[in-house]
Amino acid sequence: RDEKVTLSHGSGGKATHNLIEGVFAPAFSNPLLDAMDDAATFHVDGQRLAFTTDTYVVSPLFFPGGDIGKLAVHGTINDLAMAGAEPLYLSAGFLLEEGFPIAELKRIVASMAEAAREAGVAIVTGDTKVVQRGKADGVFINTAGVGCVRASWLLGQTQLQPGDKVLLSGPIGDHGIAIMLARENLEIETDVESDTAPLHTLVAALLDAVGEGVHCLKDPTRGGVATALNEMALGSEVAIALDEHAVPVHAGVRGACEILGLDPLTIANEGKLLAIVAPERAETALSVLRNHSLGREASLIGTVQADPAGMVLLRTDIGGMRVLDMLVGDPLPRIC
Amino acid sequence: RDEKVTLSHGSGGKATHNLIEGVFAPAFSNPLLDAMDDAATFHVDGQRLAFTTDTYVVSPLFFPGGDIGKLAVHGTINDLAMAGAEPLYLSAGFLLEEGFPIAELKRIVASMAEAAREAGVAIVTGDTKVVQRGKADGVFINTAGVGCVRASWLLGQTQLQPGDKVLLSGPIGDHGIAIMLARENLEIETDVESDTAPLHTLVAALLDAVGEGVHCLKDPTRGGVATALNEMALGSEVAIALDEHAVPVHAGVRGACEILGLDPLTIANEGKLLAIVAPERAETALSVLRNHSLGREASLIGTVQADPAGMVLLRTDIGGMRVLDMLVGDPLPRIC
Ligand SMILES: Nc1ncnc2c1ncn2[C@@H]1O[C@H](COP(=O)(O)OP(=O)(O)OP(=O)(O)O)[C@@H](O)[C@H]1O
Ligand SMILES: Nc1ncnc2c1ncn2[C@@H]1O[C@H](COP(=O)(O)OP(=O)(O)OP(=O)(O)O)[C@@H](O)[C@H]1O
Ligand SMILES: [Mg+2]
Ligand SMILES: [Mg+2]
Ligand SMILES: [Mg+2]
Ligand SMILES: [Mg+2]
Ligand SMILES: [Mg+2]
Ligand SMILES: [Mg+2]
Repeated sequence: RDEKVTLSHGSGGKATHNLIEGVFAPAFSNPLLDAMDDAATFHVDGQRLAFTTDTYVVSPLFFPGGDIGKLAVHGTINDLAMAGAEPLYLSAGFLLEEGFPIAELKRIVASMAEAAREAGVAIVTGDTKVVQRGKADGVFINTAGVGCVRASWLLGQTQLQPGDKVLLSGPIGDHGIAIMLARENLEIETDVESDTAPLHTLVAALLDAVGEGVHCLKDPTRGGVATALNEMALGSEVAIALDEHAVPVHAGVRGACEILGLDPLTIANEGKLLAIVAPERAETALSVLRNHSLGREASLIGTVQADPAGMVLLRTDIGGMRVLDMLVGDPLPRIC
Repeated sequence: RDEKVTLSHGSGGKATHNLIEGVFAPAFSNPLLDAMDDAATFHVDGQRLAFTTDTYVVSPLFFPGGDIGKLAVHGTINDLAMAGAEPLYLSAGFLLEEGFPIAELKRIVASMAEAAREAGVAIVTGDTKVVQRGKADGVFINTAGVGCVRASWLLGQTQLQPGDKVLLSGPIGDHGIAIMLARENLEIETDVESDTAPLHTLVAALLDAVGEGVHCLKDPTRGGVATALNEMALGSEVAIALDEHAVPVHAGVRGACEILGLDPLTIANEGKLLAIVAPERAETALSVLRNHSLGREASLIGTVQADPAGMVLLRTDIGGMRVLDMLVGDPLPRIC
């Protein structure tokens, strides 16, 4: 069999999951990687640290609400935050295509620097590579991040328990739809903007108020809420029952999804989080989220239950019940 | 003026230096980045850590002596080692081109896993992105690394002092020439292989034996020994006088350089280091290097002096003296 990499392998959904499980995870296997959380956590001389990386290949480079530089800072901050860590330091690996305008590079770098400054993190190390014209696409950026884990308990996708509540910090799909609409060939008129934002202060507020009541945090980026919930259900061998009507979606996103035949639950976000919390702390958690500027439209969208283990069930708007899978295929390549 | 990114901006030499100084360093500026060392070092709750990143775009992906995966592990280990750190954890960010054969990806991943295992580091977090055919070149890999700094004194390119000795751990140019010869259009017959190797145990031996006598460590990668020495001369505002005859170069490399019109001093390496040591510890340092399998051909190649500050002077084989600049242009794009 002569298998090739496909765009679906980059979707963040099922094909990505299979590629990671089939190729990377077995070869690199170790206890820290095997957890498959947003960031790895480990102790160095008694201090618990978080470490994560993402490469950004978004196209176009500039879009309503942001640009690749801002995304590269927020995305990595968010994966650190999902591990219960305070983000401290970032690296910046630039991969440039020969011929890229220096003036545009400067705009991206300025935006990145501003995003880092606003979030209180420092870019402390970097790298700059150039490939020939036609061997890249303008600019790709990798960021890695190091943070200091403030949560003293275990937090992650193996920690869900039946009865836990599923909270979502706000409306979904804005990032993915903004990118999609920014692509030249689409001419749907809306005011959708990327939701890109750094979530570490929202997480800090949540952890301060709810402590060990927070069992898992996950940012529904590529593959959307549907994929993130499936990963958690698999990671903890539990089921998650989701109420579709409780999931906030902006009208512009809903409209674009209908026209394009997409499900908002599979669209990427970059300023939203899912929090799995103990039932008795759900109300407090929800009000903490709503009191933060990045969680004003937070809602309780579902419940963790024992069966059917490893699956996500969706109670649809029209009252039916169906299995909600991870994203399959890649309707929106290069969303982040 | 309508400036564009050129291949020279990726050479690791003068143009890269200017791009970093002109675009990245001012925008991201902070005390940790400003040191411009191979890795940034900082304290987290009392523990001194090192953090670094590199993106690997080498072409071809497989070459005599190694492949992109091995390089991506060794290169980042080496930048941590140059900061006096014990490398602990790596991230792996894969950027794949649609259509890339999964079988080749598996070979690269296996090689990376083996290199990490051999070096005693763990790949604990990663990312996988895919771009359309023609928007990348097979596979690009970013690795970032975190290590624990064992040196208790300041080590880096601002720490050179007049009188210090310059040691080189072995013959230069093998990596760059091996890559160059592996490119299809060249048909020079030699047995040159990449020197790619992890240098952390060599560094540990040196630091154990010589301690604070080691003032700076630097791996002469892109831009070669000439560029690395210039960066140190600038960083410490000192001059470095180099004896060309003392620089070991394998016959195959020397021959290829003559045919191609290249200077071995500007060719990339990935298993060599430069150590700047206090004069009274130079002899000990040299014997420690020579007693390690990766430093058997180490030699003393030069001396640090006060003037002309910021410059490297080369005493040539034929007895003349000339200024040795950083690499200018990019004769060998995508060497790492
Ligand atoms: N090439 C790889 N090698 C090793 N581990 C990988 C690789 N790609 C992904 N992973 C791991 O798989 C898990 C899922 O990765 P993924 O990139 O989907 O997460 P994410 O960064 O949170 O999402 P996104 O990339 O959409 O922001 C993480 O634990 C990550 O460390
Ligand atoms: N895009 C960037 N943003 C911020 N800092 C950068 C960037 N590119 C390089 N740097 C910094 O500039 C210095 C030199 O980088 P360079 O990549 O040449 O070093 P290196 O990794 O040791 O060499 P090589 O990449 O050839 O292995 C380092 O301190 C690095 O952190
Ligand atoms: Mg994530
Ligand atoms: Mg991410
Ligand atoms: Mg580098
Ligand atoms: Mg280096
Ligand atoms: Mg390097
Ligand atoms: Mg990722």
